[in-house]
Amino acid sequence: MPVMGTNHTLAPGISTRLFSFIGGSTGNWRVTRMTTICGEPLPVARFLNIAPAAVSGVGAAWVLRGITSNERYVTQEEKSELLAKQEGLGRPASRCAALIPIRKSATWWTLTQDERRDIFEEQSAHIKTGLGFLPAIARRLHHCRDLGPDEPYDFLTWFEYAPEDAAAFDDLAAQLRVSPEWKFVTGEVDIRLERISGK
Amino acid sequence: MPVMGTNHTLAPGISTRLFSFIGGSTGNWRVTRMTTICGEPLPVARFLNIAPAAVSGVGAAWVLRGITSNERYVTQEEKSELLAKQEGLGRPASRCAALIPIRKSATWWTLTQDERRDIFEEQSAHIKTGLGFLPAIARRLHHCRDLGPDEPYDFLTWFEYAPEDAAAFDDLAAQLRVSPEWKFVTGEVDIRLERISGK
Repeated sequence: MPVMGTNHTLAPGISTRLFSFIGGSTGNWRVTRMTTICGEPLPVARFLNIAPAAVSGVGAAWVLRGITSNERYVTQEEKSELLAKQEGLGRPASRCAALIPIRKSATWWTLTQDERRDIFEEQSAHIKTGLGFLPAIARRLHHCRDLGPDEPYDFLTWFEYAPEDAAAFDDLAAQLRVSPEWKFVTGEVDIRLERISGK
Repeated sequence: MPVMGTNHTLAPGISTRLFSFIGGSTGNWRVTRMTTICGEPLPVARFLNIAPAAVSGVGAAWVLRGITSNERYVTQEEKSELLAKQEGLGRPASRCAALIPIRKSATWWTLTQDERRDIFEEQSAHIKTGLGFLPAIARRLHHCRDLGPDEPYDFLTWFEYAPEDAAAFDDLAAQLRVSPEWKFVTGEVDIRLERISGK
């Protein structure tokens, strides 16, 4: 399986919106911890590779696919603030990463936009909380739910940060997990990683 | 290609969210008109079949895929009003249908949720206009944009109505096409169909 062996990087300017996160025995990122927060666990993987494409899972412990998409909740004002503060993926100092696949309940998905926004931000301050950790924690959100009818997760969020910001990342995750929004999370795995030297 | 020959109906209770619209030489619906409103035309097809699954396009003029998903713009109040008035697909009297694939511009997709909602409803009254045609015009919206990075359209909307409501459907389409929202539509084909007797 040729794609598995190649070392795809998260280079800026990649033109696809679709990414595959391949857990297995090879990759640019070493898995340091996999914690099932709720729902089904994922099979253990020692390494992670990220491919800017859909790949088959031959030889891998798992392949999770997600697609970047339009903004769902941020307002124009919030977006301006995010753009002013955030930094991109691939910073040399970002030697730590987290991949957090999340699934939300059927109840969440039957809510209307105004109801979801109210829980997401007015009740849970999801955007505001994330803003407090910029630019240290860089992130990219991938949507899975509308890739097909049988995806195991709804979202894959990829975070990158420097080793000295690992405690801050723990704080961010903890703050979100006690928010009202998280009552709708039915599946979550927290995968921590470190970049392999020289890659 | 076995799926092409089967006569999938839009029966209530179908559990998948993913549908394929197969234009070709066979199907339960006869194409009565194909009009390219803007963008690229679709190849001519004489019949349409609808499969509750992803199918390959072997032997077909085209296959368009879309997935039903959560609400993106309606508020809880609007949803209640829609649910109170709308009727489902598959009504015996609904012998006419329209399939309207639409693509929106890159500019649309970089707008935030509040900006898109403002254009969609406050400026264009998309939901309010549709409400005025209920229950005569039944509809189901399918999203394509997040199925993958290379889908030709962003949405496929399927409408069903009785022959005597065909003029009303023309009115609905015309009202939407002159709205501010339609300035962001870069591709649109209007495919009208009639159900084949006995199916």
